[in-house]
Amino acid sequence: MASELMNERDIEFMLYEFFDSESLLKRERYQDHDRQTFNEVIATAKTIAEKYFLPIRQKLDTHQPTFDGKKVHLIPELKPAIDAVIASGLSSATADYETSGMQLPPIIASIATSYLTVAGGVGLGYNMLTTANANLLSAHGSKDLIEKWVKPMRAGRFMGTMAMTEPGSGSGLGDLITKATKAEDGSYRISGNKIYISGGDHDLSENIVHLVLARLTGAPKGIRGISLFVVPKFLLNDDGSIGDDNEVALSGLFHKMGGRAQTSTALSFGEKNGSVGYLVGEENQGLKYMFHMMNEARIMVGTSAAVIGIAGYLYSLDYAKNRPQGRLPSSKDPLSPMVNIIEHADVRRMLLAQKAYAEGAFSLVLYGTQLSDDEKTAASAKEKEHAHLLLDFLTPIIKTWPAEYGTKANDLAIQVLGGHGYINEHPVELFYRDNRLNAIHEGTTGIQSLDLLTRKVPMNKMAGYLATLAEINITIEQAKHYQRLTEFSQQLTAAVTCLKLTTEALLSAMTSNNIDLALANSVKYLELFGHVIVAWLWLKQGLVATKALENKPHQADENFYQGKLQTLQYFYRFELPQIALWSALLIQSDDSTYQMKAEWF
Amino acid sequence: MASELMNERDIEFMLYEFFDSESLLKRERYQDHDRQTFNEVIATAKTIAEKYFLPIRQKLDTHQPTFDGKKVHLIPELKPAIDAVIASGLSSATADYETSGMQLPPIIASIATSYLTVAGGVGLGYNMLTTANANLLSAHGSKDLIEKWVKPMRAGRFMGTMAMTEPGSGSGLGDLITKATKAEDGSYRISGNKIYISGGDHDLSENIVHLVLARLTGAPKGIRGISLFVVPKFLLNDDGSIGDDNEVALSGLFHKMGGRAQTSTALSFGEKNGSVGYLVGEENQGLKYMFHMMNEARIMVGTSAAVIGIAGYLYSLDYAKNRPQGRLPSSKDPLSPMVNIIEHADVRRMLLAQKAYAEGAFSLVLYGTQLSDDEKTAASAKEKEHAHLLLDFLTPIIKTWPAEYGTKANDLAIQVLGGHGYINEHPVELFYRDNRLNAIHEGTTGIQSLDLLTRKVPMNKMAGYLATLAEINITIEQAKHYQRLTEFSQQLTAAVTCLKLTTEALLSAMTSNNIDLALANSVKYLELFGHVIVAWLWLKQGLVATKALENKPHQADENFYQGKLQTLQYFYRFELPQIALWSALLIQSDDSTYQMKAEWF
Repeated sequence: MASELMNERDIEFMLYEFFDSESLLKRERYQDHDRQTFNEVIATAKTIAEKYFLPIRQKLDTHQPTFDGKKVHLIPELKPAIDAVIASGLSSATADYETSGMQLPPIIASIATSYLTVAGGVGLGYNMLTTANANLLSAHGSKDLIEKWVKPMRAGRFMGTMAMTEPGSGSGLGDLITKATKAEDGSYRISGNKIYISGGDHDLSENIVHLVLARLTGAPKGIRGISLFVVPKFLLNDDGSIGDDNEVALSGLFHKMGGRAQTSTALSFGEKNGSVGYLVGEENQGLKYMFHMMNEARIMVGTSAAVIGIAGYLYSLDYAKNRPQGRLPSSKDPLSPMVNIIEHADVRRMLLAQKAYAEGAFSLVLYGTQLSDDEKTAASAKEKEHAHLLLDFLTPIIKTWPAEYGTKANDLAIQVLGGHGYINEHPVELFYRDNRLNAIHEGTTGIQSLDLLTRKVPMNKMAGYLATLAEINITIEQAKHYQRLTEFSQQLTAAVTCLKLTTEALLSAMTSNNIDLALANSVKYLELFGHVIVAWLWLKQGLVATKALENKPHQADENFYQGKLQTLQYFYRFELPQIALWSALLIQSDDSTYQMKAEWF
Repeated sequence: MASELMNERDIEFMLYEFFDSESLLKRERYQDHDRQTFNEVIATAKTIAEKYFLPIRQKLDTHQPTFDGKKVHLIPELKPAIDAVIASGLSSATADYETSGMQLPPIIASIATSYLTVAGGVGLGYNMLTTANANLLSAHGSKDLIEKWVKPMRAGRFMGTMAMTEPGSGSGLGDLITKATKAEDGSYRISGNKIYISGGDHDLSENIVHLVLARLTGAPKGIRGISLFVVPKFLLNDDGSIGDDNEVALSGLFHKMGGRAQTSTALSFGEKNGSVGYLVGEENQGLKYMFHMMNEARIMVGTSAAVIGIAGYLYSLDYAKNRPQGRLPSSKDPLSPMVNIIEHADVRRMLLAQKAYAEGAFSLVLYGTQLSDDEKTAASAKEKEHAHLLLDFLTPIIKTWPAEYGTKANDLAIQVLGGHGYINEHPVELFYRDNRLNAIHEGTTGIQSLDLLTRKVPMNKMAGYLATLAEINITIEQAKHYQRLTEFSQQLTAAVTCLKLTTEALLSAMTSNNIDLALANSVKYLELFGHVIVAWLWLKQGLVATKALENKPHQADENFYQGKLQTLQYFYRFELPQIALWSALLIQSDDSTYQMKAEWF
């Protein structure tokens, strides 16, 4: 099966036709780069993906990490793959030159990483978490912490984790109970249990640097009394060499539906005397630091979900183009040759849905990624602020829509392959299983929907909400000039009206007596908003395609643009109309779920 | 976790309030039974499920069958479990007394089997296939075949398979190429390759009886030239003892997403001299015999899908009732005690959706099962014919709707458990993986939708279609008398009108020039029809509940009936309105999928 990992033509489209990423080269930070270096970085990632990860993708799934009571064992092929990524510089592609980064734009790094992700880069989680850990410490840790822990992580000697979840608190971090007490030497002693800690133990590095949320003795209850600590697996001697064991014990490994190369651990901290921990930033400010990282993580989750969706789409597309089976209904002769299954309209429906979901999600996560760049490197303070406003507002959607619809795309990829989709000779069922976590971790869909409706919409006098609608309106105005897009610009106009009416009704209901009822169907609101956003980005894609077609491109490009327009049409005809149903439920404050009593189930 | 395998109150409701299964006792075939024996059979199944299957459910998944190049190895705990089922008589619960059956009504056998299915009875597939094989041979095989092969299968000494699919033909059986040639002794020599043969090799029985579809030399091409043969793994000596190897070689095992206890095999027949095969019935009539069995199998697939949906619902319900996390939006105090997650409206939404899907599907498959009984044992020829008409028409829906929506229910069960739903400490991700096959095997959703629209609807001057609508109308008329049901009877009336208009438009389009376009969105038609049927069955459930509530039942029953009515409301408010969108696409002959060209992807 020679299916592409990612669609290179679509990447070119997104980078240089949709986003104009070449314009980034004007920014001081990126002045050493050019389009060629962008493409080379992506090509390097592709090479590593194909050489190191793709050959072990299935094995990483079927040989999940084991714990013999003393040590965790991973398949030996993983370390060279991770080392290749570290050696290429890709794990710190966006970091500053001073911290041995490549100062690449996030959108380039994101696309490069996508190749690794879909080639089996779930094993890459170890690097990604290490980078996120190092970034957090670089931003909020003391010089001493950076010297001692960040440097070896950047060098690939140590790896890092984020230790948040506890058996009693998953979605509600305010209820965590891991304890911290101050010791005489200024360090702290940490004790408690954490679960679902990705990369919590392994044999890939000399040491593991855990970032642990814990509550100081006497600290306020709830989320205002949480502090963040560096708690290493091994303490360091004064010369930086590995010292004593720090009472971080692995209590067990979880066996997951997917993402199996990444250890998911239950850790026990400080059972005897307490694990030594070093405070990050100030006491009781831990959640603030962690949330900074979590917003980045949410874009990463959305991106993984989108590109795994794309990988399943491309694989099932290749299969459909090459698998003969059955005949068309119009074929009168049952003895005529079989057609490839892509000739069956229902198979094309499943491919179109995948393309609409996955490429729509891809445009959304790249948009978020570009905003995360713009908020730091755009030309003016005003542009930076505008980008920040949009990104902050859209984050719940950027995380959730790709997670939900990328996974739906993978489900359809299984169906396209039929019985072949259900066995591990083909990777589509693996894509589904890997992707299924994305609607759960870093805030479930339900949590994200409450964040959107109760925080992001009302925030700053609805500034983020209004800025988003203004962006959509710009595209509608542009699309109006093209006859081929009239149907869609009209439909999007109506969809925005529907969204506005729904939002107003909800905000009004939220100020009424019964906030619980007003928020009961918040997930439908997130889905509605997500559909409008993705419809908008599809119209933007359609706009680029329509303009490009006017220039009479060569055949391959014409096919590509026609495909974009047909997918736009599919999304507007098959998917977008659903928002009317969700809006009706929301505007009527439908109480079907709210009124259901626990004892009636 | 003490969640029930099945909901006993709901089973009682379905058997004795919804279906009046006690009235079956008046039929001659069932005269030896009474309500107590019905319940005892179900209790026996529950005991075997809990004692033999539940303890090995996870192990059956994590220790899938292995092939060492010579033999297949299954976990040793499976055979005693299967033997317990055989010893209890449950594998031939519905068979005649003369063939050592229990002559139980199919609806009782189906519910009993459900306990085994959800407790890990994917291992039970070996028995179920054996029973199906024996039933087919009993109906269509010669006395000699029955004596030689059916008897030892009924006794549990031999097991059976169905060997249809080939590498080049899955959904299109007409294209199969396995060869058969007649030998001088009247037997046949079979050669060819089959894939995805469930139970194709194992160490659970003395012999394996394959039912193989093959094409005789000189037979017509396509589906009219297919014959059915008994091809045993080992030939029998004249005294019935195991004789020579029959050239049935295992080429490999497939590794599946779920259903892992059941070996899925690639088999090679007769590589040297041809495997000896014995013709079943007449030459070139093989598909007819196989389809007879496949119709039964389709109801079984729907039933498995529905009850696995129920199992996930019950498990996630129990979890939601006992897992504290977070607080209600109305709670001003972040330090107040956590609530159990069932208090969150969005969790209730996910539970209501599961209940609506799974119990709706359950009522549908039991309806189909009862029709399959009525067509044989109802009091009059007219009633038998009516049942046959309905069942024949509804089979694609009975197979598909539960497969699609039972799996969706399982997906929601994962989401209710959050991170805990993603690991195999809890069975919900396993339920999802097991269930995912059901929309694929025994005819994919796409195939079923074409069967519904091109065969079942027009068949016999639309007699099945019209009979179905008449049944729905009876319920609507009854529901009109109850104020609580007015909203729903009106909505169902409108839904039936929508269905009729859609059907008429499609039939008209199908007679036009472009049949391929007319059928392009057939899956949406199947989904529309399925939603109307399930809405109807929910209204029927609501009717029973409403009447029962008039009699002021005790508290537990009142809760149960209120739950049924609230789920009815959920289905009509959240799910049924979607049919308007699908209908619009169908009536307009939307060409988005049809016009998409392969080269545009």
